[in-house]
Amino acid sequence: MKKGNRYGLHRVLEPEGVLPQTADKIDNDMEIYDNEILIDVQTLNIDSASFTQIKNEAGGDEEKIKEKMKEIVDTKGKHQNPVTGSGGMLIGTVSKIGDALTDCKLKVGDRIATLVSLSLTPLKIKEIKEIHMDIDQVDIEGQAVLFETGIYAKLPEDMEDTLALALLDVAGAPAQTARLVNSGDTVLIIGAGGKSGMLCLHEAQKRAGISGKVIALCYNEKECQTVKSLDLADYIVQADATKPVEVLAKIEEITDGNLCDLVINNVNVPNTEMASILAAKDRGTIYFFSMATSFTKAALGAEGIGKDVEMIIGNGYCHNHAIISLEILRENKKLREIYTRLYT
Amino acid sequence: MKKGNRYGLHRVLEPEGVLPQTADKIDNDMEIYDNEILIDVQTLNIDSASFTQIKNEAGGDEEKIKEKMKEIVDTKGKHQNPVTGSGGMLIGTVSKIGDALTDCKLKVGDRIATLVSLSLTPLKIKEIKEIHMDIDQVDIEGQAVLFETGIYAKLPEDMEDTLALALLDVAGAPAQTARLVNSGDTVLIIGAGGKSGMLCLHEAQKRAGISGKVIALCYNEKECQTVKSLDLADYIVQADATKPVEVLAKIEEITDGNLCDLVINNVNVPNTEMASILAAKDRGTIYFFSMATSFTKAALGAEGIGKDVEMIIGNGYCHNHAIISLEILRENKKLREIYTRLYT
Ligand SMILES: NC(=O)c1ccc[n+]([C@@H]2O[C@H](COP(=O)([O-])OP(=O)(O)OC[C@H]3O[C@@H](n4cnc5c(N)ncnc54)[C@H](OP(=O)(O)O)[C@@H]3O)[C@@H](O)[C@H]2O)c1
Ligand SMILES: NC(=O)c1ccc[n+]([C@@H]2O[C@H](COP(=O)([O-])OP(=O)(O)OC[C@H]3O[C@@H](n4cnc5c(N)ncnc54)[C@H](OP(=O)(O)O)[C@@H]3O)[C@@H](O)[C@H]2O)c1
Repeated sequence: MKKGNRYGLHRVLEPEGVLPQTADKIDNDMEIYDNEILIDVQTLNIDSASFTQIKNEAGGDEEKIKEKMKEIVDTKGKHQNPVTGSGGMLIGTVSKIGDALTDCKLKVGDRIATLVSLSLTPLKIKEIKEIHMDIDQVDIEGQAVLFETGIYAKLPEDMEDTLALALLDVAGAPAQTARLVNSGDTVLIIGAGGKSGMLCLHEAQKRAGISGKVIALCYNEKECQTVKSLDLADYIVQADATKPVEVLAKIEEITDGNLCDLVINNVNVPNTEMASILAAKDRGTIYFFSMATSFTKAALGAEGIGKDVEMIIGNGYCHNHAIISLEILRENKKLREIYTRLYT
Repeated sequence: MKKGNRYGLHRVLEPEGVLPQTADKIDNDMEIYDNEILIDVQTLNIDSASFTQIKNEAGGDEEKIKEKMKEIVDTKGKHQNPVTGSGGMLIGTVSKIGDALTDCKLKVGDRIATLVSLSLTPLKIKEIKEIHMDIDQVDIEGQAVLFETGIYAKLPEDMEDTLALALLDVAGAPAQTARLVNSGDTVLIIGAGGKSGMLCLHEAQKRAGISGKVIALCYNEKECQTVKSLDLADYIVQADATKPVEVLAKIEEITDGNLCDLVINNVNVPNTEMASILAAKDRGTIYFFSMATSFTKAALGAEGIGKDVEMIIGNGYCHNHAIISLEILRENKKLREIYTRLYT
């Protein structure tokens, strides 16, 4: 077997000197290098923004969607949507493990989900078998390659694949919440009724403990009800996070003007930076998981109001994030029910 | 005097419910509210991106630049460039202090620099007196208002105004460096020969101490020489931070493969996220001061290579940042010489 680079640099075709994610084209030859893992792919879970774009371009026509997907992979060697830049994840079965991976905890035949983006994963599609329009999933016959630094999770035996996939997609958020929340903290979760928001609520309540305070901010009435039924928040606030002044007034009232030690932003819309910054106390922390966060709006916004807060960019990965998120649904039956109803 | 809101919400004209920075138009009537400070403006220090845009639009013609600047302020009530969205800072003399500001440490006649952006500062220009093309500064006759949350610094008596302004523009960076560096840390500063980079070097060396390691990465040979003459780095690396693979190789060599506890990014160009992420060790920290940082490139980039690092958005403000940065030039004679030569 040929010797590969940890980051998959050996597969970058053009331009030179960049990483596979930035590359326009990568090598998707399925003969693996000594530090790679070959996967027989079962299902692609296309990133929601990417799938919507392809669907629209194809006018909803299944055959055209298939053509477009194949064209992307033929051109780039990976399923990276040229318009949105985004990828997704996949599930499949380990079919070969490179010689150099002597510490690898996998064996041939294991079923795994890759936790790195499809936007950097060498992929070959032989046939597109079925498209599940409503959950952005596509069953295929094909193969993919995982690099040495590529992260993955074994699919659990006590959960449906679709449930595990939904969880793993946002696994970074609850795992970071577990790290950031200290006992006694006042924690605000913005977008608390969404997929990642509910998982963060669970971890926040667990870590803040009896002396802490968890505040859930939801946009619509229905999600407020859902969060209420979960019993994971001390306070539930219905508000629009793009309206900073409105949010501040409500959080000041709940916290007696003390504001929050930690604000976790899990929304999926732009312009919620200021509400997050205003809700945090002096020297508090804001964790932006939302991909709609603007770096400059956050940096200049905090400066503009002279607010000394630490603002963290939500890294999709942290150690043990898959284990932590899967465990949440084992710990919390009510959450599992809701999650199963909503996301499978 | 009328009662004002801490964030200056009482001055927002349109749209409603947003903060002054986001507003399209704010009220620049110079009758102050009870928590505001009135300033007789001496000089505007226009943000570099904004000034370049105005200069180009005006074809370098001084009269046209003046017209454009007045038009912006007449339309918006503040000097916020409609194309770049950015502002700048100003220096002037305190002319009136609101009744409610009983704790204010200023008195009428004090000379100050505002440390909040012009993009949220109510401003009225009576006359544009002189434009200093090469340092983006404009002398005017006019007035401005500082909100209760607006931050400022008294201009020091032992430094020229232009020197203090240059320092205060990037004061957040060295102050955050002082907080983030621990004794014994290996610290990489990317863009170390720039305005903010050199100040960060000073703080990093001071905090990392004899058991730490400070690595300065500069883009061009001349800045390598400048940094060398400052004697603030254990290692100086000449490299292009948009080439992650090249940077990683050099940092691995210097650190024996251990990489860095802290990476501080002070460049002024895009696409340097991956070099910063690769250079940090597992559980290391990256502080992005550069405004050219992309939130999604950082978040997805770290996930893509399975790297568990903390990534911080560079807040332009933190407590005592003005004092800290001014003090650096008092502590470090060599740095003051270079700074005076380059930025005044
Ligand atoms: N950093 C990473 O690595 C990473 C990884 C995965 C996902 N993400 C990002 O994380 C974010 C959340 O993902 P998700 O899967 O949890 O999304 P989601 O299930 O769609 O949840 C988003 C939530 O935000 C709420 N919301 C929308 N507009 C709002 C507003 N104006 N005010 C308050 N709440 C509002 C939504 O309410 P409605 O239902 O009423 O609209 C929903 O509850 C997305 O931006 C996604 O891109 C980041
Ligand atoms: N977060 C905040 O609140 C805040 C406040 C103020 C400023 N900023 C930002 O901070 C950044 C730095 O500001 P500054 O005033 O220190 O800028 P600066 O003096 O222009 O310094 C930038 C440095 O980056 C170097 N550089 C450019 N391209 C590079 C590359 N490809 N690889 C390595 N280095 C490269 C430059 O080298 P050359 O001279 O060779 O080009 C220069 O030394 C800017 O992005 C600015 O917008 C942020």
